[in-house]
Amino acid sequence: MSRKDVVAGPRNEEGIATVIGLLKQRFGERFQTGQSFREQHAHTTTYIPAQLPDGVVFVENSDDVQAVVRLCAAHKVPMIAFGVGSSLEGQVNAASGGISIDCSRMDKVLEVNAEDLDCTVQPGVTREALNTYLRDTGLFFPIDPGANASLGGMAATRASGTNAVRYGTMKDNVLALTVVTANGEEIRTAHRARKSSAGYDLTRLFVGSEGTLGIITSITLKLQGIPESIGGGICTFADVKSACDAVIMTIQMGIPVARIELLDAMQVRACNAYSNLSLPEKPTLFLEFHGSEQTVALQTQQFAEIASEFGADGMRFTSDPQERNQIWKARHNAYWAGRALAPHLNGLSTDVCVPISRLADCVEATQADIAETGILAPIVGHVGDGNFHLLILFDDKDEADVEKVEAFMARLTERALAMDGTCTGEHGVGQGKMSYMQAELGGALELMRQVKRGLDPDNLFNPGKIFRM
Amino acid sequence: MSRKDVVAGPRNEEGIATVIGLLKQRFGERFQTGQSFREQHAHTTTYIPAQLPDGVVFVENSDDVQAVVRLCAAHKVPMIAFGVGSSLEGQVNAASGGISIDCSRMDKVLEVNAEDLDCTVQPGVTREALNTYLRDTGLFFPIDPGANASLGGMAATRASGTNAVRYGTMKDNVLALTVVTANGEEIRTAHRARKSSAGYDLTRLFVGSEGTLGIITSITLKLQGIPESIGGGICTFADVKSACDAVIMTIQMGIPVARIELLDAMQVRACNAYSNLSLPEKPTLFLEFHGSEQTVALQTQQFAEIASEFGADGMRFTSDPQERNQIWKARHNAYWAGRALAPHLNGLSTDVCVPISRLADCVEATQADIAETGILAPIVGHVGDGNFHLLILFDDKDEADVEKVEAFMARLTERALAMDGTCTGEHGVGQGKMSYMQAELGGALELMRQVKRGLDPDNLFNPGKIFRM
Repeated sequence: MSRKDVVAGPRNEEGIATVIGLLKQRFGERFQTGQSFREQHAHTTTYIPAQLPDGVVFVENSDDVQAVVRLCAAHKVPMIAFGVGSSLEGQVNAASGGISIDCSRMDKVLEVNAEDLDCTVQPGVTREALNTYLRDTGLFFPIDPGANASLGGMAATRASGTNAVRYGTMKDNVLALTVVTANGEEIRTAHRARKSSAGYDLTRLFVGSEGTLGIITSITLKLQGIPESIGGGICTFADVKSACDAVIMTIQMGIPVARIELLDAMQVRACNAYSNLSLPEKPTLFLEFHGSEQTVALQTQQFAEIASEFGADGMRFTSDPQERNQIWKARHNAYWAGRALAPHLNGLSTDVCVPISRLADCVEATQADIAETGILAPIVGHVGDGNFHLLILFDDKDEADVEKVEAFMARLTERALAMDGTCTGEHGVGQGKMSYMQAELGGALELMRQVKRGLDPDNLFNPGKIFRM
Repeated sequence: MSRKDVVAGPRNEEGIATVIGLLKQRFGERFQTGQSFREQHAHTTTYIPAQLPDGVVFVENSDDVQAVVRLCAAHKVPMIAFGVGSSLEGQVNAASGGISIDCSRMDKVLEVNAEDLDCTVQPGVTREALNTYLRDTGLFFPIDPGANASLGGMAATRASGTNAVRYGTMKDNVLALTVVTANGEEIRTAHRARKSSAGYDLTRLFVGSEGTLGIITSITLKLQGIPESIGGGICTFADVKSACDAVIMTIQMGIPVARIELLDAMQVRACNAYSNLSLPEKPTLFLEFHGSEQTVALQTQQFAEIASEFGADGMRFTSDPQERNQIWKARHNAYWAGRALAPHLNGLSTDVCVPISRLADCVEATQADIAETGILAPIVGHVGDGNFHLLILFDDKDEADVEKVEAFMARLTERALAMDGTCTGEHGVGQGKMSYMQAELGGALELMRQVKRGLDPDNLFNPGKIFRM
């Protein structure tokens, strides 16, 4: 966290006033400038103070998006794409004011090609809505960042989550995008073929660009067959190091776990209280295996052997859907469980990611730092990727507390970078991680600016995010 | 193919003369301007006429590359990165003259992190050299485009090959790159963490950029554990459609085949003659399965059931390494076997890729077109990806033959695009596919130009490739 990056950028008052008038004319009730709409569109699940847009336009199709982009471009007014507002690093803040482009009404599944295991959706479709839609096809979309995020937002932030260890992140699961670019035209980054070497990888350039290069108007996604069999379970370890070592060996052995999630003792305590469970309050792994009955049984057995080697106890594996759902519901509610540890405090959810061999070191050193700093910060992690999260509980009205947390965050990032890791495995940069980018990327940051200048020369798409121009 | 794109670009004679003098001073014997060196560095396994560079510099480390880039940039002289010269679409031609940067002496494996299943290599390391180096670690690098290409070249062209159906392409297997950019500085695109959402995906921007955005100086690659067990086999089908339908169902069922390769009857005939085999001269699939003994047996059985449904016969599965090697050696020599069908003719190797549901249609229509056009063109394909190759045999001295082939190629591309496919699944654009890019990408092509202008404003990195500026 570094609130110093949450500063107001320059505002083009005249352009904004003009565009507000023109959008009212064109969109009528679908354009709103009321305070509550504006507040809602700068609201994110975050510690970052809100910066309101000047108006919110509810787009319904690509023509709408093109019209908005053309108007804003003509008058040099910033545009901020909005999905459901579940981003964590201030991605939807309007640092220089401007227009929030709310894509939630672009919520149609445009096409499902079951034979090709792909589908094309509008950006406002949420991942839960997509999976509900797909229910009868035998297919599912695996990426699960926890929140019921919009797929446009997930593409824009390169989201991942619990299933990424097996199915990859959004970068691995987006086949193509249509995007409205700075001149208001819609382009298509690629076709539906599974691979292509026809020029630059524009698809992956837009995935993770956080709305700074254009507005996504459709997303073509890979789908997976629903596994014939799903197994799952939990096991506990004496310490975080043993749990991480078991994870490391599991990955190194090539066991294709679908999910392998670490909760530290404090997080287990929080989940017990919040979700009415009675798990031993020790470092715990939640697991899931996907495959045929045989392969799930095989993977479970292979994992159990590894876990035993590292002193696991309380191993409990089940293919009972109800029992499994209870576990994963608790995992998904980990954020709220953590918040409930200290309801009077603010919550700052952050993540780092390191090469898997350094995972145990990084988590242990971070736990020691938490203890020394004297903060409350349960840890959960998609540890199969070397990725873990902290929910730091603090009082954002208390300057001393804020400073303490900022210093802790800086040390956390430094630690991850020293281990050849990254300041964010999946939350993105937004405003919250901007100050770490120079240390992480050095001269590569200037290349990102060159790309930005090339595609958005007037800096109108979500300005003041990822880096300063 | 469209030879009209193999035109000479503008030459900066003064700059070239100056740089030649300066490179001689700095590199001595490591800089060569003799005809044979120049010819060798414009030579590719291709039908495309050579365009020689003005000199060849043999770089040995990143400092060398930086020095060359700074000199060339100062005098506005084109630079063309060179690996082993196995590219197929004229990627190493010097359309505007300039300096070939030969990376073959940058052949060190810099680091293997067995625990993290990754390694970092210099760009001149070939894939076979890397796998030899890794032999004792229990790990391997799976991407196999056939030729013993350099890993720098493979990254630059987004190579894939027979294993891509299981392990992905270079885009999925490069974790990070160091690259010398237009100002002569070396940047690092990412760290070793398995995932990151820290800004634009520069790694994948450079993968597939064919040397047009910078010179790759190191590549961090994902590695895989050598499978405990490898099974393989072949089976034949009455027609191409049945073979493709078996492939489609295999993919749709989620059977994790490691390789699934189609050879049409003409290609089988060519392989029989060239590799001394006696396979039935019918459409044939070559397969490989990776896993534990149990999973390989399971996959083999599942596939056999599918193949039977589509009338396969002559199924022969084996885990005997020798028998397997014989099959795959024949597959790897398919190009030379095809050439031997008509040794007096030239060979044009091309590829397209379509969504898998359209594979059978595309291959069948292409076979009909081959017959109608009256050309000799065996087909092999990485059909699990919807990707197939043709080796078109023709006489490049015969204008009528060239025209016939050009028209055929245009139809092939149109057909693939009409099926939501791409004009190249893995060979890249170079000069040979440049004329199809507008039809495939429309407005997205202009975005690629914007990226190029942003990163290489003087158009010095491999000019005249992928698109014209």
